Amino acid sequence: MEALPEAVKHFVREARVCRIASVRPGGEPHVIPVCPVFDGDSTVYVDIGGRYTTAEALRDDPRIAVLIDEYDDNWARLKGVLLRCRAEEATGEELERAWAMIREKFPQYKPIGWEPRLTLALSVYDWRQWGVTAPPRYETE
Amino acid sequence: MEALPEAVKHFVREARVCRIASVRPGGEPHVIPVCPVFDGDSTVYVDIGGRYTTAEALRDDPRIAVLIDEYDDNWARLKGVLLRCRAEEATGEELERAWAMIREKFPQYKPIGWEPRLTLALSVYDWRQWGVTAPPRYETE
Repeated sequence: MEALPEAVKHFVREARVCRIASVRPGGEPHVIPVCPVFDGDSTVYVDIGGRYTTAEALRDDPRIAVLIDEYDDNWARLKGVLLRCRAEEATGEELERAWAMIREKFPQYKPIGWEPRLTLALSVYDWRQWGVTAPPRYETE
Repeated sequence: MEALPEAVKHFVREARVCRIASVRPGGEPHVIPVCPVFDGDSTVYVDIGGRYTTAEALRDDPRIAVLIDEYDDNWARLKGVLLRCRAEEATGEELERAWAMIREKFPQYKPIGWEPRLTLALSVYDWRQWGVTAPPRYETE
């Protein structure tokens, strides 16, 4: 895989939300919004409910598509990154590193209890982007 | 299927963007952002590139998950609707009705050429929502 360009890494690192698509055991697509953190290289971490549909889907097929995009009514400004990933449960030191990032980026977790549920390490094996590495079309705003 | 509540219909109708997840012939999940219109009952229309990955996926399996959600750093305000749909190409009068809605809601199509590419009718067969039908947690802002 070609390494992620710096602009793409920055875009992924800054994202407050992403949408992750998985495939349910019966072959039906599923997609949910989640709050991601990024290790700065090629792994995204998200924490999800262990009994939810996405968790069930990933037990059967660990492939997951991670979409990070920003909509703008000015379509010249549309941008996004699609990361094709394999999901694995983060454990041990990796889980601790992931949660250090989660706590820093999303202090919202604090009042609702901090507890890791099912924390996934999503390893990127392919990607594409639009509008992220190119310079902005309009620079005056 | 239980009919969509009015608040959910309103949320879907107003959405400027949604994310649609499909399953590629090899079983891999895929997800893209698209601009939806809604017939007010149980069909969402989107126009996509006919040679893109989503179109290829739907030829093999017409099931598609449509996520319409709004992220807010105040997690008490998170809201979303997940629509499980079957995709069919819109043609004839249905295509014309869909494009009347698209032109009205997204005048952005005009300067880039208006042409329908592959216009999909996404018929909802199941759904769930969070944060949409409940009254807002905080009303003072």
